Amino acid sequence: MEMRNVKLILSYDGTEFHGFQTQPNLRTVQGLLQSTLEGIVGHSVSIIGSGRTDAGVHARGQVVNFSTSSRVPIEKWPIVLNTKLPDDLVIQDAELVPDDWHARFHATGKEYRYRIDRSPYTDVFLRKFCHHVPYPLCIEPMREAARQLVGRHDFTSFCAANTPVTNKVRHLYAVELIEEGTLLTIVCRGEGFLYNMVRIIAGTLLDVGRGKLSPDEIPGILAACDRTHAGLTAPAKGLTMWKVFYT
Amino acid sequence: MEMRNVKLILSYDGTEFHGFQTQPNLRTVQGLLQSTLEGIVGHSVSIIGSGRTDAGVHARGQVVNFSTSSRVPIEKWPIVLNTKLPDDLVIQDAELVPDDWHARFHATGKEYRYRIDRSPYTDVFLRKFCHHVPYPLCIEPMREAARQLVGRHDFTSFCAANTPVTNKVRHLYAVELIEEGTLLTIVCRGEGFLYNMVRIIAGTLLDVGRGKLSPDEIPGILAACDRTHAGLTAPAKGLTMWKVFYT
Repeated sequence: MEMRNVKLILSYDGTEFHGFQTQPNLRTVQGLLQSTLEGIVGHSVSIIGSGRTDAGVHARGQVVNFSTSSRVPIEKWPIVLNTKLPDDLVIQDAELVPDDWHARFHATGKEYRYRIDRSPYTDVFLRKFCHHVPYPLCIEPMREAARQLVGRHDFTSFCAANTPVTNKVRHLYAVELIEEGTLLTIVCRGEGFLYNMVRIIAGTLLDVGRGKLSPDEIPGILAACDRTHAGLTAPAKGLTMWKVFYT
Repeated sequence: MEMRNVKLILSYDGTEFHGFQTQPNLRTVQGLLQSTLEGIVGHSVSIIGSGRTDAGVHARGQVVNFSTSSRVPIEKWPIVLNTKLPDDLVIQDAELVPDDWHARFHATGKEYRYRIDRSPYTDVFLRKFCHHVPYPLCIEPMREAARQLVGRHDFTSFCAANTPVTNKVRHLYAVELIEEGTLLTIVCRGEGFLYNMVRIIAGTLLDVGRGKLSPDEIPGILAACDRTHAGLTAPAKGLTMWKVFYT
């Protein structure tokens, strides 16, 4: 039976998911997608994701691939799946890829966005996708601190403690702040990210924004290679996996 | 006991409400706000809204007023209420108003926004606040049709049939279309609106956008004074009461 390798771009509202990765008896993106696909194609399916997202984290452009003998025309995959999936998981695109194409190994970079609602009281329409920060933030120091993070650094201070990864050097291409009214978005683009890295960057930039930390302290925090030197891990609901890059 | 008249600006995600107006045994905005207020002030409270919204319709700036003997400082009302309210109903502002001030009688106009998601597949972050329209829409004819609706007209054709209102003449100040990426927003400002009026305007403009109706037919539809001549009532979830105007 000839197998086809299918790439999917998916978006999800992470609120009601226990993260991306399959876990027994829990509602996860990978688990739900797998069981839905298996119901359509009639054989077992293994889903490879570009990377995991934690419970409560959203995705606009998560990428997965899977191999199937199904003859569903490639352009029909989004509609076939969206008809069966619940409304908090939406397939945005499908593409036929070479047999050896791998959503994780072939990813060359990722963009995450951390969104902050600066309204005095919660914006009811953004409440599930933003971290609500009602206190005033000074944006220019946050931008200055963001610039200090760009480049190739050991990000041990910006990685959840006890993460079983030995090499914590990563290359951050950009950390940008976009203001749109009361919405503040921290855009992080890099070759790869450590566990909780964007949420710790967001928490640290928030400390800078409220004057608890100076932008000048960022190089020292990086150099310390100690998680306790950076800010708190900002809440999951503000984080969205925005885009995965492939060459 | 000296009574104070308090004006509140409230926002809500209408998804889980059976509309604004109190109904026995149903979760409504007015009912929830009333019971929450009564729990705080310790006396019965009567809430006057600027107008009703239907089940599933949202509000960014709904306005209400109520009379109370409570000595809660006026600027504390949002935080006092928001602490007790669920997260789909958020108080945005409070103001002390004269005793005779009335949220409905003193309103001089309203702005509603009808939002349309034109993504090929649903935007998962806007799915509860937009009507998803995946087919192509021609915006210029929609703008031309919108201009034909502006002004003082008998809007019987744009009002739910069997509505017990005799005078269906209303003054529409503006009907504007705003494009932001795949999001299309129909902004309607007027002195007052009939039952389902904005949703029928949206449904009719969508018919124009997909070429089912020409902008030239709008004057005839208005003149017919017959609900069956206009387009379908667009879904509730796309509609948001945006702002209420007072002089």
